[in-house]
Amino acid sequence: MKLYDLPPSPNARRVRIFIAEKGLDIPTEPVNMMTGENKTEGYLAKNSLGKMPVLELDDGSCISESASICRYLEETHPNPPLMGTDALDRSQVDMWHRRMEFELLNPMITIFVHTGDMWKGRVTQIPELAEVTMANMQASMEWLDQELEGKEFIAGHTYTVADITAQCAFVMGKAALGIRIPESLASLTDWWQRVCTRPTARA
Amino acid sequence: MKLYDLPPSPNARRVRIFIAEKGLDIPTEPVNMMTGENKTEGYLAKNSLGKMPVLELDDGSCISESASICRYLEETHPNPPLMGTDALDRSQVDMWHRRMEFELLNPMITIFVHTGDMWKGRVTQIPELAEVTMANMQASMEWLDQELEGKEFIAGHTYTVADITAQCAFVMGKAALGIRIPESLASLTDWWQRVCTRPTARA
Repeated sequence: MKLYDLPPSPNARRVRIFIAEKGLDIPTEPVNMMTGENKTEGYLAKNSLGKMPVLELDDGSCISESASICRYLEETHPNPPLMGTDALDRSQVDMWHRRMEFELLNPMITIFVHTGDMWKGRVTQIPELAEVTMANMQASMEWLDQELEGKEFIAGHTYTVADITAQCAFVMGKAALGIRIPESLASLTDWWQRVCTRPTARA
Repeated sequence: MKLYDLPPSPNARRVRIFIAEKGLDIPTEPVNMMTGENKTEGYLAKNSLGKMPVLELDDGSCISESASICRYLEETHPNPPLMGTDALDRSQVDMWHRRMEFELLNPMITIFVHTGDMWKGRVTQIPELAEVTMANMQASMEWLDQELEGKEFIAGHTYTVADITAQCAFVMGKAALGIRIPESLASLTDWWQRVCTRPTARA
């Protein structure tokens, strides 16, 4: 197996943390987006959308979409479970995972894409979209803080892929967007301390 | 079990089609978003984000997020399989399902939300976002047309949840946004004929 990687991307990072939490050793190959390596014929044959990460299996099969890569690794390397342990639990982890994508990670990426210099000329940047999304982020953090009351991790008492996605969202928020978890949000702050100190957090 | 439903929503529709394809009979209860029923304390206890659909199980557990509801039903009612049949196949269906969400369904919803009268005052509408998303939709349809060459369904030779999500996107595009699949996109047009004539298409 090989992981085609984009080192600073929060999507690639969530797959790398997932791999580290599973204790797997999968070689990575960085793809240089700035030189257009992701738009070459060779790479587009692996993912026709030209996005990273991609997991290439030994038989040449390629899996795109970070969450789909995690799902494959969960099924082929079930321990420790990071996506739930029975049908209902798996659906709840999946629900929380999606909520973290739609309420946190995707909005962070939207703000980055619509304000960042590296996206100038690659997309039509809409500053108003970044502003509105930034304002909504405050409400999302307040919502998540309430949801975390009395819970150790986002989907309950176990660390899961939902935590991984949320922590990658906040890493991007902090490093690239100046978004920090307000100290007044005590449950969210406690959760952040719990996840950002894990040995895998910098994978 | 009971499905809290929003009849015109493409997200609710994809769950209803999934249920129909499984041959299940799950009672539905419509939630009136226009009168704010989805923001009542009772409904927020089922889904704190106030969104539909929600699947309520007999023990009172609630599952939000359309794709997570489908995942639960797939696991508890495996036949016919709509999400793949082994680890690699399931990851490929999941990948295609996400691509249909991110390239088609979510953009259609974005256009609707940022232009539709029913969303005025509920969100900050950004007409430029709708315009840019509409222009990208053309490119997405061309990409999907190429991907469908020689394939009967989106993830391969079997009808899956990826087709369901894509067809719900195009139903919304046609009914609410005036977006039609160009006849010049022959593979996509053929696929559309194949899926929109299924007995479950109007579930």
